Amino acid sequence: MKLASLKSGRDGRLVVVSRDITRYCAADNIAPTLQAALDDWENVAPRLEALYRDVEHEAVPCIRFHEHDAASPLPRAYQWADGSAYINHVALVRKARGAELPASFHEDPLMYQGGSDAFLGPRDPIPLRDEVWGCDMEGEIAVITDDVPMGVGAAEALGHIKLVMLCNDVSLRNLVPAELAKGFGFFQSKPPSAFSPVAVTPDELEGAWADGRVHRPLLIDYNGQPFGRAEAGVDATFSLADLVAHAAKTRPLSAGTVIGSGTVSNRDADGGPGRPVGEGGRGYSCIAELRTIETIRDGAPATPFMRAGDTVSIEMRDAHGHSIFGRIEQVVEQA
Amino acid sequence: MKLASLKSGRDGRLVVVSRDITRYCAADNIAPTLQAALDDWENVAPRLEALYRDVEHEAVPCIRFHEHDAASPLPRAYQWADGSAYINHVALVRKARGAELPASFHEDPLMYQGGSDAFLGPRDPIPLRDEVWGCDMEGEIAVITDDVPMGVGAAEALGHIKLVMLCNDVSLRNLVPAELAKGFGFFQSKPPSAFSPVAVTPDELEGAWADGRVHRPLLIDYNGQPFGRAEAGVDATFSLADLVAHAAKTRPLSAGTVIGSGTVSNRDADGGPGRPVGEGGRGYSCIAELRTIETIRDGAPATPFMRAGDTVSIEMRDAHGHSIFGRIEQVVEQA
Repeated sequence: MKLASLKSGRDGRLVVVSRDITRYCAADNIAPTLQAALDDWENVAPRLEALYRDVEHEAVPCIRFHEHDAASPLPRAYQWADGSAYINHVALVRKARGAELPASFHEDPLMYQGGSDAFLGPRDPIPLRDEVWGCDMEGEIAVITDDVPMGVGAAEALGHIKLVMLCNDVSLRNLVPAELAKGFGFFQSKPPSAFSPVAVTPDELEGAWADGRVHRPLLIDYNGQPFGRAEAGVDATFSLADLVAHAAKTRPLSAGTVIGSGTVSNRDADGGPGRPVGEGGRGYSCIAELRTIETIRDGAPATPFMRAGDTVSIEMRDAHGHSIFGRIEQVVEQA
Repeated sequence: MKLASLKSGRDGRLVVVSRDITRYCAADNIAPTLQAALDDWENVAPRLEALYRDVEHEAVPCIRFHEHDAASPLPRAYQWADGSAYINHVALVRKARGAELPASFHEDPLMYQGGSDAFLGPRDPIPLRDEVWGCDMEGEIAVITDDVPMGVGAAEALGHIKLVMLCNDVSLRNLVPAELAKGFGFFQSKPPSAFSPVAVTPDELEGAWADGRVHRPLLIDYNGQPFGRAEAGVDATFSLADLVAHAAKTRPLSAGTVIGSGTVSNRDADGGPGRPVGEGGRGYSCIAELRTIETIRDGAPATPFMRAGDTVSIEMRDAHGHSIFGRIEQVVEQA
């Protein structure tokens, strides 16, 4: 099924959306918010699934769904933890600054605790106080779990993934080096992220959901031009289930936990760094990766970070070309 | 006023507690949960204050308040960000491993994003899967804000501090070095924290609340013996308002954001590292600090981290000896 939260108050209003993302039926008589549904998922999900079947069969009255009316599926969440499943991205960033990739990075995922108190809506502007901070997009896959016990393995973790979304993990790149040098991880360099208008159960992905990975290209346009076409199922060293298990090693995870894949990133077909889409490559899911490649190739980055007025869109389509999650579409705005 | 959340469901049941923490009156007719109260604080707080006056004047029927029935005031929160206001603690940890303290640490606070999806109750056991992980307590002051706009200064941030609590920021010390070496900050090394049974408005602290600092000793007992008596108002390089402003530099903070002071830590009267309480010093608010002092003095730490059965209590008393927030009291339990 497909779920969305229409903008309303702090937590939105839960609706069931048709498979083609054109119609919705209010579901707040079943659960007022997506968080409330997740808090009692075992009981609530079958009722939402039944409504979804009715929506698909046009057995209930539906209303036209406008993606710009949607908040992020969880407008605020109790947990947002973002991994780095695509080691290619991490390796490139390190190579650009002349650092080796520790072998342990292939066994032990990178993950940071992100802020989750207020996500941006999928069509909300990205408010930026200072362009010098180096605003960047990061196109990612994200999942929402139910309650996950402490110490689960990846196989068990897979069953706790209830919903899948896309994410724009907004980053302030020029604040990262000083912040990471302090040793406590990202904080000011990670302002609120945005998620796709619609969250879907894994079965909606059909064959594209396998091994805890989404096997479809992540379509990223920057200022209206194709920028990223990376295959999300390729070069993912860790599955989303691996990342859930990593997060749950020393503590349980509460229902409504959002876990991110990190920036989707592919090596080039020849094993080297990815080429731009315009040169026949799969492009990039963030500007920083292009800048690292420019640095490795030319000694310095050429592409600037995002400035007021720059736009990014993030989408994924099924094998028939239909949007699965709706489209994240954001413009940077001086705040 | 003093507020608590009695254990009930995922978010507890909001009650107003008498100043002496012996009686309560249900407040869920005003707001069902503390988060709901914070979401609409401007309207809700005056009604809670009115009920608090009635509780104090015994103008409403009250029920005996048992601290072990309380969850953390926010049983789960949308944000938990923990600073390091007490640079003495940071300096000692660095000195023990032979590292200098960067001068910038006196201007730019350390802060990490913590997990907030499920806090431990103040009398809940600390579940520990593996003693090898090096379980430690951290005694801290924590505040809860209302909505804080992006970019506020410290003076304005002060007005957004609505409630004050104590915190036990449980840490798994032996997981810290490898995790910080990866560069993304704490994650597995920071399992759920616990907060005091009662959260209080700053006016309840009377003269002890000044300059965004709480000027009372933090009383920590370990296995029934006095372990820490550090003055929370002393050696706090950053105020709680400074930390709120730091958190809000690049993004707004949503109502119900919890900001921690970091481990309370005092230098000795002679300017050196603190001495144990038993030797006339102010002791320590975590075991790691004692271990760093042992390392600096003797070349190696002698005091082990917490093991199953070890207990910690954290409390603060007013000038008349009355408990302000109730007592955090936890035992480590094999999970």
